[in-house]
Amino acid sequence: MSDTLITLTTDFGTKSPYVAAMKGVILSTNPAVRLLDLSHEIPPQDIRHAAFFLAAALPHFPAETLHVIVVDPGVGTERAILYVEWDTQRLLAPDNGCWTLLAQDAVRKVIRLTNPAYWRHVVSRTFHGRDVFAPAAGNLSLGLDPGELGPIIANWEQLHIPGVEIRLEEVHGEVVFVDDFGNLITNIPPGVAGTIVIGDMAISQRVSAYGEAPPGTLVTLTSSFETLEIAEVQGNAARRLGAAVGTPVVLRGAAS
Amino acid sequence: MSDTLITLTTDFGTKSPYVAAMKGVILSTNPAVRLLDLSHEIPPQDIRHAAFFLAAALPHFPAETLHVIVVDPGVGTERAILYVEWDTQRLLAPDNGCWTLLAQDAVRKVIRLTNPAYWRHVVSRTFHGRDVFAPAAGNLSLGLDPGELGPIIANWEQLHIPGVEIRLEEVHGEVVFVDDFGNLITNIPPGVAGTIVIGDMAISQRVSAYGEAPPGTLVTLTSSFETLEIAEVQGNAARRLGAAVGTPVVLRGAAS
Amino acid sequence: MSDTLITLTTDFGTKSPYVAAMKGVILSTNPAVRLLDLSHEIPPQDIRHAAFFLAAALPHFPAETLHVIVVDPGVGTERAILYVEWDTQRLLAPDNGCWTLLAQDAVRKVIRLTNPAYWRHVVSRTFHGRDVFAPAAGNLSLGLDPGELGPIIANWEQLHIPGVEIRLEEVHGEVVFVDDFGNLITNIPPGVAGTIVIGDMAISQRVSAYGEAPPGTLVTLTSSFETLEIAEVQGNAARRLGAAVGTPVVLRGAAS
Repeated sequence: MSDTLITLTTDFGTKSPYVAAMKGVILSTNPAVRLLDLSHEIPPQDIRHAAFFLAAALPHFPAETLHVIVVDPGVGTERAILYVEWDTQRLLAPDNGCWTLLAQDAVRKVIRLTNPAYWRHVVSRTFHGRDVFAPAAGNLSLGLDPGELGPIIANWEQLHIPGVEIRLEEVHGEVVFVDDFGNLITNIPPGVAGTIVIGDMAISQRVSAYGEAPPGTLVTLTSSFETLEIAEVQGNAARRLGAAVGTPVVLRGAAS
Repeated sequence: MSDTLITLTTDFGTKSPYVAAMKGVILSTNPAVRLLDLSHEIPPQDIRHAAFFLAAALPHFPAETLHVIVVDPGVGTERAILYVEWDTQRLLAPDNGCWTLLAQDAVRKVIRLTNPAYWRHVVSRTFHGRDVFAPAAGNLSLGLDPGELGPIIANWEQLHIPGVEIRLEEVHGEVVFVDDFGNLITNIPPGVAGTIVIGDMAISQRVSAYGEAPPGTLVTLTSSFETLEIAEVQGNAARRLGAAVGTPVVLRGAAS
Repeated sequence: MSDTLITLTTDFGTKSPYVAAMKGVILSTNPAVRLLDLSHEIPPQDIRHAAFFLAAALPHFPAETLHVIVVDPGVGTERAILYVEWDTQRLLAPDNGCWTLLAQDAVRKVIRLTNPAYWRHVVSRTFHGRDVFAPAAGNLSLGLDPGELGPIIANWEQLHIPGVEIRLEEVHGEVVFVDDFGNLITNIPPGVAGTIVIGDMAISQRVSAYGEAPPGTLVTLTSSFETLEIAEVQGNAARRLGAAVGTPVVLRGAAS
């Protein structure tokens, strides 16, 4: 177990020394771990972005992977830090809902970290990533019984994601994620035909793949998140449409 | 072979979960691989940028390295995905020319991926990085015979890079790459003396190293790409000159 | 020693192929090394930023780690390249002071790299990262006696960081580091009570953790650098206050 794969997902950026300090602490606890960056570009303190990111990425990892997630607007307050056994994998994450878009029926155990024996000797109030998450991860990779970290708990913060609203021949949803290409991922199911209205733009061209329409065309398609996506071919739909997370999106049925 | 070094070069950015999902799929196929990020900041769908990047970086890698390259405006269309044996190394790349600035006389074998037995069970039309490239890479790292992936092919897309034009005592070229410092890499051979004209600016100070002129000076020198480079000492020549890939550059000989 | 941990800290960004080329050269010298990115987003040629970064990160790493640092405005000039034994760790860094905020009483040996036998055969004047640092790192990881790299030296560049000035019931300091969240790290000791004045703003709310005040509040607290920090809760103090490295900060005592 000593060469455990530990992934890191943070909103720290890499201009700052925070990620590097975390890596140093983990490696000082267990020099044999294999560290893997998932992202340090989660938008600052954006729990919802982190939740979509994790739900799309973590299910692909092999059993026993330990994911360390630090997107934590509540650092230093009474919010808990959690150890989670999810499916065959393990997570360390703040208790702010950022990991709860992962299928909750696969949660096998949740522990609240309360035992400072596995933290750094002095714990700052601003940098739990270095002082709590990193040494806990290092110790877990050495085979520490998770029960040593603290008590099992039965309740934790859940992230509430807006659902779609179905009206007469219309589905009202919104943009729930914007990727680095400016593609707009919505919460609208992908299987329904119709015209998408976003802002004052109506988009009726449905494609299977970006390359099916000429550059610059606004299209809809099924995203790799398995929901309806709005894209500009070889362009940036978010910029073109002035859209962001939360922008309303309406699907008008073929009859309307 | 199971701890194969697999490098990743994409235009995905890391705010999105796409790179993380690819890493998960590769590691789920073969948990022993060693993953190495080359870049996820290739400008979106910029095949030419990717081609310069790869030509400058890949020749330095050791034998047997497997490079996974996903800069792919044609995802989901009929463009092929290629397995390439280049010199002593191996590549997986879309067939859009992005890898063809690597010396083509060192190409030993090119295979078109057609066998879905080595892809994910459901292949999305928007995310071949996760669904085709990643499982193919994982399987190759486990020792899969590349011949299982598909048939050997003899023709593939080639990237055409503008050449320089030589006129009376002038060489007409252009900017072919802009690095993160704003240095302008041209396609003009480095060995010729003269004055460089770019926009309405004439630059005659030739140096061997940036530090030979005071901060803020516009200079020319031999780039690490072995062509003529235009730089602002401790500054950003691209911003200062309003230059980008494709900006014309003229070298006027000593006599003019 | 062959699976040595080698970390990389540069100002190269990853849009350019420079970091990838360095990784290739290191791995071609020793395919067994474990490479770890610390940052490639050090602001271009910002020695002071690099120095704070390294002082905050490197002390956390385990013994025998080899850190390769390329933030090097003087590349190609006569500035030296150094091999440093610091505490139980090792560094390769340009001789421009970028590593000298690490406790200098833990410096055990400094060598100037003068022996081209351990460089690439052709050394460019613009890319010592690839041509000198990378092969030297690879060779050290293979067990090369550092004495082979060049002579021991007794003097090297030191970075001079502004100190605070203590006047009548006031401490005059400045911003010394701005992190990715826009938090302002100052050089003022954290233990003194009082009001912080920056620009035309007076900040008197002192907290222990960001989460103790409502979003948008300007607060001061003890940074993870163990100095006084100015932050906007869930916001960006640098942007809000128009502050940057060097912005004056005054601490007014309780009596004033």
